[in-house]
Formats: sequence, structure tokens, C-alpha cells
Amino acid sequence: MPETKVKKTQDFNEWYNEIVELADLCDKRYPIKGMNVWRPYGWKLMSHIDQLIRDEMIKTDHQEVCFPLCIPESSFKKEEEHIKGFGNEVYWITHAGLNKLEEKWLLRPTSETAMYPMFSLWIRSHADLPLKTYQIVNTFRYETKQTRAFIRVREIHFFEAHTCHVDFEDAEKQITEDKEIAKRLFDDLCLPFIFCKRPEWDKFAGAFYTISIDVLMPSGKTLQLGSIHQYQDNFSKPYNINYEAEDGTHKPCHQTTYGMSERILGALIGIHGDNKGLVMPPMVAPIQIVIIPIIFKGKEKIVFDACDSLYKKLKKENIRAHVDKRDTTPGNKYYDWELKGVPVRIEIGPRDLEKKQVVLVRRDNGEKKFVSQNDTVKTIIDEFDMISKDLFSAAKKLLDENTHRVKTMEEAEGLKGIIELPWCGNEDCALEIENILDGNTLGEPIKKGECKDSCPVCSKPAGTWMRYAKTY
Amino acid sequence: MPETKVKKTQDFNEWYNEIVELADLCDKRYPIKGMNVWRPYGWKLMSHIDQLIRDEMIKTDHQEVCFPLCIPESSFKKEEEHIKGFGNEVYWITHAGLNKLEEKWLLRPTSETAMYPMFSLWIRSHADLPLKTYQIVNTFRYETKQTRAFIRVREIHFFEAHTCHVDFEDAEKQITEDKEIAKRLFDDLCLPFIFCKRPEWDKFAGAFYTISIDVLMPSGKTLQLGSIHQYQDNFSKPYNINYEAEDGTHKPCHQTTYGMSERILGALIGIHGDNKGLVMPPMVAPIQIVIIPIIFKGKEKIVFDACDSLYKKLKKENIRAHVDKRDTTPGNKYYDWELKGVPVRIEIGPRDLEKKQVVLVRRDNGEKKFVSQNDTVKTIIDEFDMISKDLFSAAKKLLDENTHRVKTMEEAEGLKGIIELPWCGNEDCALEIENILDGNTLGEPIKKGECKDSCPVCSKPAGTWMRYAKTY
Repeated sequence: MPETKVKKTQDFNEWYNEIVELADLCDKRYPIKGMNVWRPYGWKLMSHIDQLIRDEMIKTDHQEVCFPLCIPESSFKKEEEHIKGFGNEVYWITHAGLNKLEEKWLLRPTSETAMYPMFSLWIRSHADLPLKTYQIVNTFRYETKQTRAFIRVREIHFFEAHTCHVDFEDAEKQITEDKEIAKRLFDDLCLPFIFCKRPEWDKFAGAFYTISIDVLMPSGKTLQLGSIHQYQDNFSKPYNINYEAEDGTHKPCHQTTYGMSERILGALIGIHGDNKGLVMPPMVAPIQIVIIPIIFKGKEKIVFDACDSLYKKLKKENIRAHVDKRDTTPGNKYYDWELKGVPVRIEIGPRDLEKKQVVLVRRDNGEKKFVSQNDTVKTIIDEFDMISKDLFSAAKKLLDENTHRVKTMEEAEGLKGIIELPWCGNEDCALEIENILDGNTLGEPIKKGECKDSCPVCSKPAGTWMRYAKTY
Repeated sequence: MPETKVKKTQDFNEWYNEIVELADLCDKRYPIKGMNVWRPYGWKLMSHIDQLIRDEMIKTDHQEVCFPLCIPESSFKKEEEHIKGFGNEVYWITHAGLNKLEEKWLLRPTSETAMYPMFSLWIRSHADLPLKTYQIVNTFRYETKQTRAFIRVREIHFFEAHTCHVDFEDAEKQITEDKEIAKRLFDDLCLPFIFCKRPEWDKFAGAFYTISIDVLMPSGKTLQLGSIHQYQDNFSKPYNINYEAEDGTHKPCHQTTYGMSERILGALIGIHGDNKGLVMPPMVAPIQIVIIPIIFKGKEKIVFDACDSLYKKLKKENIRAHVDKRDTTPGNKYYDWELKGVPVRIEIGPRDLEKKQVVLVRRDNGEKKFVSQNDTVKTIIDEFDMISKDLFSAAKKLLDENTHRVKTMEEAEGLKGIIELPWCGNEDCALEIENILDGNTLGEPIKKGECKDSCPVCSKPAGTWMRYAKTY
């Protein structure tokens, strides 16, 4: 079979850059670098991911809102750490028509400073809490590093949940729920991930603590797909988000956020794809089944009828199917749909029809089998399940094989992927290790687990493990 | 029953301004005027409208895309008429972080100038045509007139379809399809409307001609909900959108666009609402049925069980239902859900349950009836149909009673709503009539119909009718 020009197994980064356009996910030729066009296939795929997120939000009683894109400078500047963190990477609107604005606005890099002045108006009493909201919007960050489709862009398709609570404990419960949401969501996407408690010096601007959701890409670098933040009352104080408690006193809310972005799509492409192109998990594939008629002269009608009949049966089961009736060879069709990662291909030809069977081919492993026409729908549903499990297992293997818990810098040297080393709790030691490994500090595992070894830098007793990796 | 502070029947504009916030559709207190916060109920309502639009797009083979928000100044300035039309009402981004941008960007007021440079890359041959795309995004216009929620805002929730065709005739077919889409969509929303062919001096910047979709609001003013534009090759020439025809020659595409906005929601609120609040058409109501348990001591369980059981039956039929179990009086609950326009209320109490019946109340006309428990779901579905028809009829009556075809300025004087007068085809005469009526020229009816009368201004023979109205 024809394959992409660059092989994933040879040059992952180049393969990635090529496949995102070859598979019609996006167009990078838009005249602003890092702001790409979502093409129909890519946008549909992203919409299916969004829908999984929305389903989780509905299940957990979050309400969808939509806040304005523009934030006045004065709203933005109320929380000091936040402005320090984001001030240099926002876009500024200074003029409307020919007029200079009295106050500059910025394009949201994230929506804390748009939402919190309003939360302060919405929340009056404990009866208004918890407030659980989310939105799926475009956000903007002025990236100076090299851009990469879906992974490092300047206009970001973004999910952000924002919640307000009566106290720290209730906010902690939200974070537990967020972690469960992440587990269910990334299970559906066949993406094994790790939670890392980010180090103090690399937590979100304004957060009390930050938990990141990281996956390992085939390049050996980790990709952060999302983060969950405990804010305590760090924002509610400057933004006056207070409530009247049952005892009549007024207290600041405790807040959390949960953010994810189109990077999820980047991870799907990178982790599941192969030399032939994308491999989409059945849950989000824009087309789950492609049906290819195998035409022989004089047998067109019987074949097309069988294709249409299967299509109808699948549609009834809410399976996203497509019959490819284009006037080209089956081989060309296989190539196109393999490139686009359609999980299952069904081939229907006159000889098989005589035997009352069709051919089923799995995209992930190329496995081919004959399926009785009567069982086709049931078999397909079972195959989806197996494909999902196998995709997850393969990705889990990649993650496990490239996660190394070692005790000394000598052992760490030359290892690829995620490296866990004992940590004494001192920032300088972690930064020294970053230097030696030419990587970044990911953070501590959230299930801490005691570490009885000593810090490989200062030799002091290490209370915990710390993770390092090269990162996108 | 309690009602809104301001009555729709007394002061429509004030009632409108009040109800959009009272019914939790939006919050106008965001610190940038004209950029409002979508609250959960309003956003859900808008999402249902968007879904109807998406369904129409799928039906007609349009592909959803998503283009960047920011447009470089040089892309924007390629079509002369367009920049004349929009240049003074766009927002400019001049800085990223602390750096001044080499080239300014603007926030899209509409996406022609973002899309067309890419269409020029996408389209190669006649086989790529027709190209039918759409997106649902936020757009921005620097409105200097008084803002009004959903009707005149500065960040606009916007639908835009853009199509490319081999020639003028094929583009005309698209416009025919667009008109059919509009008819189906506004039927679902129970909104009768008129198509007007905009006069030359008021067509879209860059269009060959523009057809507007206008509704009549209870204030007597018309509200433009959308427009359909024939561009011919006005954009494809400056943007180089060419294709190779079957005969090997290269030709510019002919293009159309179809735009609509959150104004649709403004029309729903304004046209269907009443002194008690919103009245939502069943097709888009976030909650279609509210079930109110009527509690008597000792009978709680039997009532709640009956409510839950009905809820489950409705859910199975994909009907959006809600059981209001709050600890407050039925009267308070009625008030809240009437305010929010839930089309049907079901009351379930122990006495009715003994008779195996429930009470059904229509929001639009207050009609109350007893329904056998066995027939509840079927009756509800029938009621939805009747409510939709009645909402449409009431709105149609408003439109018809306030549309006046007259021949002279004397007859026109003092009339409210839409006034049709003979027109000679001369711009000056129409502008003179605008002056006299203190209104705007809407355009000609698209089903022209001969006019044998003479222009009320210059007395020359009028070949056509022209419509005038006060407009939002």
C-alpha cells in the first residue's frame, strides 16, 4: 500500500506535520502563522471530542456558558500573579474603526478575568454554590516558540470549566470529580495519561496548586493535554467573589478550574497514527465505517444495493457510516480511508454476497475477516470495542516502556521518555536535574508513595519522586 | 399571576430589555458595552437554534469549517467595496505582548477576507465545485448605535455559509436552495418573514445583489435576521479564486454567502413573548415540558413517582423534560417556568392520579386540560404541533395586519409596520420617501409582481413595489 512520504517510525515530527494536512484536518497556509484553518474532517473530529466533553459536563451538572472574547485591561490586572504569568503573551486591541479605545482590551488567553467579575455579581449566598460552569471557545496566546498544528498554536480551541465552592474541602471534591472526568474521557479516546502535581515554580499563574494531564508522544516527549487547578481564594479575594454563609457571615469562595484544548486531537494523531496515516478511535471517528463496493461488470446493482442496505442498518444503530461509490479503484479508496483513519472497512463484492458474507478489515492492525451478512452490525459493534481496547493497550505499552524510575543521574542518563528520580523538595535540585537531562520538571505523581532514597543532586533524603521529560 | 415589571403590551422595548435578563438569557453587566455574557439558559436556546441550522446544512451537503478569527490587514483590503463598507467598524489588534505587530490584524466582522485567500488554494478544477462550506463563530462589529441584547451587539454569534460555483447560474441555484433553507428553518421557529431584494445603495459591501430576511417585531419595526448574497465574481477576481473548466480554460468562480446571527433569538423573544415572559417554540425550547408535583402530606411518594415515571417516558421519546422538585409553592414554580417560556406544563397531584389523569397547561394561551395518564406522551407531542402552528399564526397575523400596500404618501402617512409603495427605480425618490416616513428602504419583494401605478414622489410610471419600514 502507498504510505505517507515521511514515515512515522523514521521521523515522528515530520510525519506529524505532514499528516495533519494530508488527512484534511487543517490548513497551515493561513497568512497568520500559528492560526490554522480547521478543514471539515478535522473540525468534525474535534466536534466529536467536544461532544464527549459536553456529555461529561452534563453528567456532572456543569452549565455551559459563553463569555465575551475581549477583556478590559483593568479586569485583567486584578490578580497579580496572573498578570505576571500572562501579561507578555496576550494580544491587544487598541482601536475600533478609526478611534483609539479609551481602555485597551485583550483577547482572552483563558477566561478567569472575564468570568470572575461576573461571578462576583452572580453569587450571593451559600444557596448559589457550588457554581459549576464551563465553555468551549477560542482563546489566544502569543506563542514565540515554533508553532505546530493542534499542539502549539496561537488561536486555541479551548475547554475551560470554572467552579466556585463554599470552602477548600468542597473545591477539593470538585478536583476529585475532575480527575474522574479525565479518566472516563481519555478512556474513550484510548489515551493513557499521567497526573502530575506541577512544581511550585511552574504552576498556573494564580493557582494554589496545579495538576497536569500529560501523555507520552512517540517522539519520547510528553504533551500536556490539560490541567486542573485549585485556586483556593486567590482569585475570589481580588475579584470579590463572596457569599453569605448559613450563619450570616460573609466568606470568599474557593475556586477550581479544569482546562483542556485541541492538543487532545494532537495526541490522538500522534499516538494512534501509523505510517499509513491516522488511526481514529471509534468513539470520535467522523466516519466509523467505510463501505467499499467491489464492482464487477453486470453485478453493480446487487453490490450497491447490499452496500446501501448495510448503510441503513448501521445508521439505525447511530453508527457513522459512509458508502464510497466514487468511480476509482478499490485500492485508491483503501488508501484514502486508511489515511483518514476510519476504524473499520467493509468490502462488499458479488462473490462474497453469494456466500452471504462481507469482508471486514480493521484499520489499526490490518486484520481481515469474513463476516456473515446477518451478523455484520453486531460484529462491527464488537470490533469497535476490541479496537478501542487494543489502541489503549498499545499506547499504554508505549507509556510504560518509556517510564523509568531510577535513583541516580548515571542511571537516568540516555533514557528516553519520562524519568522519575528521588526529590528532596528543593527547587534548585530539580532545576539542576532539568539541566543535566535537558528536559523539564513535570511534577510529582499525585499518588505520592513514599521515596526512601536520597536526592541525586544534594544527597539529602528525598521525601518524594519527581518526574522529568522533554516536553512539547 | 405575577408579571414582568414592564408589560410587553405597554412598552415593548423596555419589556424586551428587561426580559432578556429576567429569563436568564444573558447578562448585560459585562464591563464592555455590547459584549454580553451568555448565561446557561440563553446559550442552550441558541445552541438549539444552531442545531437546526446545522441540520439544514447537513441536509444540503454543506461542510462545517472553522477559520481563524484574526485577519491580516492586507487580506482584508483586497476587495475595494468591502473595505469601504466595513473599514470603519472593525476592531484592530496592534500588539502582541509588548511587541508591536508588523502588520495589524482585525477581528473578523464576517469571513470573506479570511476564507477567500484559502479558497483560492483549495479550488483547482471544476471537479472541486461546488464548494459549500459554513461556520458558526463569533464575529465583531464596532457598533456606535445604541446596543440591544441579541439585536445590536458588538460580539455577534454568527452563522455564515460560503459557496463557490462554476458560473452565475449555478450560484443562482444555490440562492434558491438558501431560500428554501430559510423557509424550513423559520417555520420550525414559528417566525413568518419576508424576503426583500435590498436596493443597490444598501446591498452588502461587495455583493452583486442582496436578499434580506426580515421579520416584523411588535414595536412595528422590522428586524433583519439574515441575508443571502450573490457575489458573482466580485470577490473571486481580486482573491484569484479560479478553476480549470472541462474545456481546459481558466475561469473565476461565482460565489454566494448566506449569513444569520443571534438576532434570530431576539426575534423569538420579541415576537412570541408576552407579559408573563418568554414563549418558546417547542422545537428549540431548552426545556419543552416542565412537570410540577402537587404535594399533599403523606402523598409525596406517589406523586414524585408519577412525575419521575412520566419524565422517563418523555426522555425515551427525546423530549426535553424537567421535574421541578424544589421546596416552594406550585405558584412560584408556575411563575418561573412561564417567565422562561416552557411550552407545556404538566401538573401531577394525588387527586388527579386517583382519576388516572394529569393536568396539561399550554404556555402560549394558558389553555388547561385533563389528560389521561395513558395518553400523556402522545397528547404532548400533538400539543407541540398545535402550539407551533398557533405561534406561527399569531405572528403571521401581526405581520399581515401591519403590512400595507398603498399608492400615495397621504395613504402611507401614520401607518405602522411595513409600507409598500410604487417605485420608479430612482434612488432619490426612495430616499425622499425614507425621509417622509422617517424609515428605511427594505427592498423590493422578490416575487416582483407588476406595479402599474406611478411613483408617489416623481409621478413617473413605477415598474415595481418598494418596501419601507422603521428598522432595528
